[in-house]
Amino acid sequence: MNLLLFPEQALSTEGILQVSGVQLQHLRNVLRSSIGDTIRVGKVNGSMGTGRVIEIDERRAVIDVTLDQSPPPKLALTLLLALPRPKMLRRILRMVAELGVGELHLINSYRVQKSYWQTPILEDASIENYFMQGLEQARDTCLPSVNLQRRFKPFVEDDLPDLVSGKRALVAHPGDYPPCPGPAAPLQHTVLAIGPEGGFIPYEIDMLQAAGFAPISLGPRILRVETAVPTLVAKLC
Amino acid sequence: MNLLLFPEQALSTEGILQVSGVQLQHLRNVLRSSIGDTIRVGKVNGSMGTGRVIEIDERRAVIDVTLDQSPPPKLALTLLLALPRPKMLRRILRMVAELGVGELHLINSYRVQKSYWQTPILEDASIENYFMQGLEQARDTCLPSVNLQRRFKPFVEDDLPDLVSGKRALVAHPGDYPPCPGPAAPLQHTVLAIGPEGGFIPYEIDMLQAAGFAPISLGPRILRVETAVPTLVAKLC
Repeated sequence: MNLLLFPEQALSTEGILQVSGVQLQHLRNVLRSSIGDTIRVGKVNGSMGTGRVIEIDERRAVIDVTLDQSPPPKLALTLLLALPRPKMLRRILRMVAELGVGELHLINSYRVQKSYWQTPILEDASIENYFMQGLEQARDTCLPSVNLQRRFKPFVEDDLPDLVSGKRALVAHPGDYPPCPGPAAPLQHTVLAIGPEGGFIPYEIDMLQAAGFAPISLGPRILRVETAVPTLVAKLC
Repeated sequence: MNLLLFPEQALSTEGILQVSGVQLQHLRNVLRSSIGDTIRVGKVNGSMGTGRVIEIDERRAVIDVTLDQSPPPKLALTLLLALPRPKMLRRILRMVAELGVGELHLINSYRVQKSYWQTPILEDASIENYFMQGLEQARDTCLPSVNLQRRFKPFVEDDLPDLVSGKRALVAHPGDYPPCPGPAAPLQHTVLAIGPEGGFIPYEIDMLQAAGFAPISLGPRILRVETAVPTLVAKLC
């Protein structure tokens, strides 16, 4: 996607769009668009298609937009991820949207430093911004939903039973566990939990198992969270 | 792995190791090791095991090392990767070692900027450094082999036939191709080619197909190289 439009950005009834600001800079400086060029356009949480550049100068661009395609379907996967440290969180948020995960829960864990919850990256507008970068990369328009679960025990006890009901629930954890299985049966949804650097503690694994999660292993190599996320998503979906 | 030893770092016949410099700093400042602690130790391209800290101060650490385990086996995968831009290259090198890829060829492509080949990241000592970071993360000791293929056509015409002989050869390319298959049969080796941002050009795809590569697709989402590498490795291995 070259240009992902916010819900409030209106097209004229003839499909004419005017852009300025950051989007104009992107068209001029990154895409180096000129009159007559065709670019990929999508609307956040809406359809996508193409745009033909009719006018472009330092003040504005005028684009003739046709939104006639549906975004790709989301993966049948809910991701529960122990909140990563801020530097990694940015990349993880982009990657979650890029991979097509529809629902993300950032959860607390004993090995998540309390300070991580203070990062401005977790502000709504910031999360949306990183998600949009991932969507643009992947040619998708639909923002994942995101939930911040700052307390592990109430989340696992009160929210997880509904969340995993009728679904395949797995927790990736280093150790002598069965290997990560392959894709679920069609229409079967998977809930995948991934711990922090250093892993969930035994008490947390016990609680997740009591909530119906089966531990799985990725083998002898211990992967960073950034590598484990796409690896697990690829195997499970 | 907490401490990965260079080949030239000798243990005494009793398995006693003295460390100083960067490794000592890592023990003191990152691992915060103190006397009696047990750490994970490995020898580059050799065996791995544990070390007990006997002495540690600002000048040196003395560690009683037992190397009694084999490193995990490498994946049955050779990776051909169009040289990424330098910023991404660092992370890719770490990730290649972390994932257990045994053989990497960084290759040229029409869409690889010539300047990318000038980066100091490609110097031997630098590549080894990033590989070692990946190995330490993954608890492995064996450096991948790496080849720089600065010219596409001679590489494909002269080197690829031997490289793919008897192997499953696949090129990941966006488009209307069959989906990425699952793991190969046991003992079957896979050679996987991944293009640059923007993809291989049609001429390059034609040449790879002529060399026996079958194009495969990851679906409607266009993934960054950093996400595509673990995704493809996970599906194929």
